[in-house]
Amino acid sequence: MVVVENLTKPRHGEASEFKSQSDELREIAQSGEKRKHFIATIIGAAGDHDPISLRKLLLPLHPADCASVLSELPEESVRTIIKYIGEELDSEVFAELDEDTRELFVDILPTAALARAIEDLDSDDAVAFVEELDEEERAEVLAQTSPEFRTNIEGALSFEEETAGRLMQREFVAAPEFWDVGRTIDHMRAVGEDLPDLFFEIYVVDPMFKPIGAVAVSRLMRAPRNKSLKDLMENLHVVVKPETDQEDVALSFQKYHLISAPVVDVAGRLNGMITVDDIVQVLQEENEEDMLALAGVSDASTTDDVFESVKSRLPWLMINLFIALVNSTVISKFSGLIEQVVALAVLMPVGSALGGNAGTQTLAVAVRALAQKELTSENSMRIVWREFFTGTLNGIAIGLVFATVAGLWFHSWIIALAAGGVIVIDFVVAGLVGILVPLGLKRLNYDPAVASSIFVTFITDLVGFSAFLTIAFFLLK
Amino acid sequence: MVVVENLTKPRHGEASEFKSQSDELREIAQSGEKRKHFIATIIGAAGDHDPISLRKLLLPLHPADCASVLSELPEESVRTIIKYIGEELDSEVFAELDEDTRELFVDILPTAALARAIEDLDSDDAVAFVEELDEEERAEVLAQTSPEFRTNIEGALSFEEETAGRLMQREFVAAPEFWDVGRTIDHMRAVGEDLPDLFFEIYVVDPMFKPIGAVAVSRLMRAPRNKSLKDLMENLHVVVKPETDQEDVALSFQKYHLISAPVVDVAGRLNGMITVDDIVQVLQEENEEDMLALAGVSDASTTDDVFESVKSRLPWLMINLFIALVNSTVISKFSGLIEQVVALAVLMPVGSALGGNAGTQTLAVAVRALAQKELTSENSMRIVWREFFTGTLNGIAIGLVFATVAGLWFHSWIIALAAGGVIVIDFVVAGLVGILVPLGLKRLNYDPAVASSIFVTFITDLVGFSAFLTIAFFLLK
Repeated sequence: MVVVENLTKPRHGEASEFKSQSDELREIAQSGEKRKHFIATIIGAAGDHDPISLRKLLLPLHPADCASVLSELPEESVRTIIKYIGEELDSEVFAELDEDTRELFVDILPTAALARAIEDLDSDDAVAFVEELDEEERAEVLAQTSPEFRTNIEGALSFEEETAGRLMQREFVAAPEFWDVGRTIDHMRAVGEDLPDLFFEIYVVDPMFKPIGAVAVSRLMRAPRNKSLKDLMENLHVVVKPETDQEDVALSFQKYHLISAPVVDVAGRLNGMITVDDIVQVLQEENEEDMLALAGVSDASTTDDVFESVKSRLPWLMINLFIALVNSTVISKFSGLIEQVVALAVLMPVGSALGGNAGTQTLAVAVRALAQKELTSENSMRIVWREFFTGTLNGIAIGLVFATVAGLWFHSWIIALAAGGVIVIDFVVAGLVGILVPLGLKRLNYDPAVASSIFVTFITDLVGFSAFLTIAFFLLK
Repeated sequence: MVVVENLTKPRHGEASEFKSQSDELREIAQSGEKRKHFIATIIGAAGDHDPISLRKLLLPLHPADCASVLSELPEESVRTIIKYIGEELDSEVFAELDEDTRELFVDILPTAALARAIEDLDSDDAVAFVEELDEEERAEVLAQTSPEFRTNIEGALSFEEETAGRLMQREFVAAPEFWDVGRTIDHMRAVGEDLPDLFFEIYVVDPMFKPIGAVAVSRLMRAPRNKSLKDLMENLHVVVKPETDQEDVALSFQKYHLISAPVVDVAGRLNGMITVDDIVQVLQEENEEDMLALAGVSDASTTDDVFESVKSRLPWLMINLFIALVNSTVISKFSGLIEQVVALAVLMPVGSALGGNAGTQTLAVAVRALAQKELTSENSMRIVWREFFTGTLNGIAIGLVFATVAGLWFHSWIIALAAGGVIVIDFVVAGLVGILVPLGLKRLNYDPAVASSIFVTFITDLVGFSAFLTIAFFLLK
């Protein structure tokens, strides 16, 4: 059932026209028959080289919907669309394009048109667009923009990727602390067009232009005109430095329920702001990274082709193969034992599979807690102990069941003891390794989500195989 | 290096006092020596039953910081704090408490005080607090609140958990389409206290109270007083129904960069709004759920004790044990073969471990794409084919390496062929299963993140073991 509605309507439409057009646009934005039909119509219009129809179909769409429609069209149609109406599209569409479509725009559109479009964007969206261009394209496009815009973009690009400096926009509203409500509102009315498109807070600055507070626009509007900003402002819970990692910024937004946060320069002067819509994007990206990293995929998208998919997964599988082979050499050391008892060959993989899973469970909890800053140097010892005991208890529970099954199956208490023992040992090791490996990687400044699972699987497999064979070897002697 | 600063300052402090106090509060909010010292001081003050010190230490904190400090104190101290200054704490603190601390507040505070605090919250935060209480407590607390508040809360609770109806707040600002800017601003000034604490958009409604547009407060403030709202408003890209899943609402916020969205009742009348700060929370929760589910942990927190950790992981491990044992019965069918060739016992686990990993990789990509609505019925066939080819190519690459190593190790082309063949077969199966299982579960309305990994591991293990043994059996005959 479709329950989130899209009511995009033409700005000056009649009530009756509004109904039908809004229904249409809502259905186009969601997957289904209507969208399929809409896309087929666009492909037709592009095939006919019919700019009037293309304009009528694409221009009323929300920029996000327009970009998502473009991403589903065949390359030939997109090329035609860019050629005929590329310069008429809302510049916001440029901020929403996927990688392949963006490259087509850069290839086909005249550099001057591209420059006009990005100059029209908020500076954070412009940076996001420009940072994906290669050196040469970037220089060409920026050469066609105003010197002030170029300086801003180059300033932002001087910060590392995934930092606050890349996320912030240079457009914000600030007022001195001694202004009152009336003066502030009058000033904003007078400045008009030069204000950012949308803003939610006004930063209050001291004479050195350092931010000392913020006033929500909704509070400003209903306060008496003679009230001073200093009396009205809220304290700033967060002031961001541009080199801050975007993940840390996102955590502050989450903790303090922020809508925007000021960014300052080295001297502490207000230099930009970060808004919550960018943070929503960051949260999504960082979480995707963590999840895929845990499963050993370096980067992925549904638009990837087979070659890209292979490239992002094969390296991890090769490492995995190497580790599995190292483990096999351990098993081969006991080849005499295996020939002797088939039970060992049958039961051995069970132990290591379970140990690997127990390790991954701890790992997922630890990686998440590290990302959320819930796992700190203060509480890490407590968590390590908890994982140790959790591993022991889970090991005893699973070990008892496994030992019982193994004993009944092969009618041997020796096999049962080896089976149960290996589970307990491997689970304790899995718990400790699952927490200590990500903690150690974090301390060495590596991303714990990326590298941990390799180590953890290696160690739990190795312990699983060798403990089983060692116990059996001594018991059977 | 600490780069996100906290500048919380007392509202009427002197400039000099401001500097030192803000530094102090910033350091307390972050983990480190200062925070340890601060917490020790609070424990001391609680031990001395010294409400004056407790007040001075805790009341200046941001509600989120106050709640986080409380969560780290021993239960005894928290009890003392609630007894002495529980009623003086900012009601926002109640919205930030963790489970254990919340229960202490409910136990210790008089019901009337609890009712006063939650009535003071925005209705979405009040709902979040009340929904965690048990039936009896909930009835007691609600009985002490105003009938209007009680009706609102009970209305929200009538919607299922994790839906828009639970997330929305009843406080919003709406104006009829025929009002102009001046009248709207004057009206808001006149109403004053009755407006919500913070808002970012004013919804424009038709005579039936259906939302037809929105005006950002920052636009309203700088528009000419005689401009009508109808001319100023933006189209509504999203109108939410209360039964919508919160994940779908979050995706709309992300796609259209929304700050707030209107919620309507069955008749389409404006009934509440959802704001982006709640969406930030939802995104975090849903992503955590997915990541932990993929690793087979049902629910987890760093504050969990050992017993809770065991409870959330043991069920999955038990299922895993059962599956591993089923696989063992397959191996045991070939016991004659295993006795004959040690190589099989040594190499067999490698194949199934790699197949399991390849399956998990596909799974992680598929679960993420489903959550993001990137995987739809339109493009699923294309993705299935891509996974098939990706599996084949990765299988050939890894299979060649494995076959070479196995052949050189055991000086047998039969072993090499069996080793390489099983990898290719298992990888193709892993790719298909990794995409088809989550797609199928989604179609049956199960959460693909929760149940997929069990099936995928089962099938890849089974195929890995049996393919290897079957190939070897026929080749060695």
